[in-house]
Amino acid sequence: MNVNGRPTRTIWLAPGSTLAAPVVEIIDQTRLPHEFAIARLTGLDHAARAIRDMQVRGAPLIGAAAAYGVALAMARDASDPGLDHAVATLGATRPTAVNLTWALAEMHRALAELAPSQRLAAALDRAAAIADEDVAINRGIGDCGLPLIEAAFLAKARSGPVAVLTHCNAGWLATVDWGTALAPIYRAHDAGIPLHVWVDETRPRNQGASLTAWELGQHGVPHTVIVDNAGGHLMRRGEVDLCITGTDRTAANGDVANKIGTYLKALAAHDNTVPFYVALPSPTIDWTLENGDAIPIERRDAREVTHIAGWTEDGRRAEVRLTPAESPAANFAFDVTPARLVSALITERGVCPASRDGLLALFPEHRRRAA
Amino acid sequence: MNVNGRPTRTIWLAPGSTLAAPVVEIIDQTRLPHEFAIARLTGLDHAARAIRDMQVRGAPLIGAAAAYGVALAMARDASDPGLDHAVATLGATRPTAVNLTWALAEMHRALAELAPSQRLAAALDRAAAIADEDVAINRGIGDCGLPLIEAAFLAKARSGPVAVLTHCNAGWLATVDWGTALAPIYRAHDAGIPLHVWVDETRPRNQGASLTAWELGQHGVPHTVIVDNAGGHLMRRGEVDLCITGTDRTAANGDVANKIGTYLKALAAHDNTVPFYVALPSPTIDWTLENGDAIPIERRDAREVTHIAGWTEDGRRAEVRLTPAESPAANFAFDVTPARLVSALITERGVCPASRDGLLALFPEHRRRAA
Repeated sequence: MNVNGRPTRTIWLAPGSTLAAPVVEIIDQTRLPHEFAIARLTGLDHAARAIRDMQVRGAPLIGAAAAYGVALAMARDASDPGLDHAVATLGATRPTAVNLTWALAEMHRALAELAPSQRLAAALDRAAAIADEDVAINRGIGDCGLPLIEAAFLAKARSGPVAVLTHCNAGWLATVDWGTALAPIYRAHDAGIPLHVWVDETRPRNQGASLTAWELGQHGVPHTVIVDNAGGHLMRRGEVDLCITGTDRTAANGDVANKIGTYLKALAAHDNTVPFYVALPSPTIDWTLENGDAIPIERRDAREVTHIAGWTEDGRRAEVRLTPAESPAANFAFDVTPARLVSALITERGVCPASRDGLLALFPEHRRRAA
Repeated sequence: MNVNGRPTRTIWLAPGSTLAAPVVEIIDQTRLPHEFAIARLTGLDHAARAIRDMQVRGAPLIGAAAAYGVALAMARDASDPGLDHAVATLGATRPTAVNLTWALAEMHRALAELAPSQRLAAALDRAAAIADEDVAINRGIGDCGLPLIEAAFLAKARSGPVAVLTHCNAGWLATVDWGTALAPIYRAHDAGIPLHVWVDETRPRNQGASLTAWELGQHGVPHTVIVDNAGGHLMRRGEVDLCITGTDRTAANGDVANKIGTYLKALAAHDNTVPFYVALPSPTIDWTLENGDAIPIERRDAREVTHIAGWTEDGRRAEVRLTPAESPAANFAFDVTPARLVSALITERGVCPASRDGLLALFPEHRRRAA
């Protein structure tokens, strides 16, 4: 998507990078939205730190960054121990991200049987392919979701922009490009359909206020930031035509675990007959889970609730305390939205009902395992 | 309620105050939760500034503060023009608060027919009576709501604390004492029923995180601050026994306008069969409104969404920006929760269904007007 008018990904091989001295560049997301900074990664430690410190975040992007991290490591030490060390180091950065584990296993599989002298070039190729595959999946989600937005535009007789509400950041910053929930929005915007996006700020980490608002603004998509409390009111007043969110894990029956607060918006959409769509790349479907009840909900540091970081008038990043020092706080990272509240799932293969039958119709190769 | 172990109201006549030089003291709520500061009001201008700058806030407390403001004015100039000036000055501080208008009209009525020499003493008496009446109403809400919490304790077979979720601040800081939504909680706590309160932080102004958490902590009521996004998850997991909120305006059919986000919590309570109670002093019932659709929803400064104030590690109050400078924001202050989602209304006269018949059974004097 565009940054300062130029098509940009979240990670790429630096211009002038050579096989002798490969350099990977990333958008440093810890500096957004107030500064667009590019960080250069020249070795394994850089890549590991970028993931650990959340300069890159979002499961698909973490996977791509880990793949490039292995490639950078191969430039220094392409031996078997060097490969094992790279995989172990990167694997320890964010232990819960499924894509991280998958990407590292894939890199190891692709490199282990090659001679060390061949590994660097192969690693760069495979990392680029993993990044491109992510872009292709997300573009597929955009293609499949586009008709839903077109239909909403026709349903309101082209009387005004299609009003979309989204929660958290499931945009291109969480992936290599396009995003998941935002992919249909970018496709519709690029196709000339007028849109307006209500951006939930998404407490406690405020990924909506800082990342979604920034990336929509950079790509020129009209939007307005609201507090998480406001979406129900907007839906009651008819100011939302449809909702689209992402998901961190989808159970086989269509229940979706996503950022805390998603369930409340799904309830409001249901109460007001507003379509509630969830966009997902198929690797986030957990075919082993009957339903969402078994999805473990991460509890994070209470400090994310009691304190918040922002920017002062003179451009410094500062953190302030919001609560009494004596008051405890609790920080639940995700909630589960039951499939009955989800109008449809948008995948790279198509749109389906949020149900076991709906998912299996698009992914028949899982029929046997699911039976 | 208690502050540092001592029973405290939000406004009182200062110790040593004389008829010659009356002094009113208030808790300066702009310094909470990080500093418990008492401000002294010695004249009309002080009182007007305290209301305008939100050192006192909450409709009932604003009414009491305005009444005391008239009394302070009478100490300087008890003439007819002096009385009119005081009422006009205080009336211009927060034009939308119903209690402000009511309290000023009441003070004017009580004083206008007296000789100027009698007005100061009468004004102090009437202001004290207005404050005491507020305390009595809120204590009545507490008495009427207590059995609901007792019932919840029995329903869980005394197996653990009653888990209550509340939104915004409808506590004693919004009134002279006791509060509205929190009155039953304080009554139950004082009666020895174990409680735990989930405190929604209540973006954008964070009255939950700053005021509700502080006053519960001061009175010794166990509580945990959560982001507004978390309540639905907690209800799904069975971690909430009941919800209690306040209301800014109640329509004759039981629809309630309250702080933005209340509707989302009511939806989650309904979806999980958790009782959702709304506590209100009867003056907030608007018998002229058929239902909540006609309640105007205030839109406030977007800066309350884009910026947030808190305290730095070294104890300074600081404001930081949360959103990209180019991204617009919208700030809706209230939403309307339809009566169908409200389990019952708790008033100073008793508990009733959220319906026209339910309200009229408790307030039969409004039957004719409602017919």
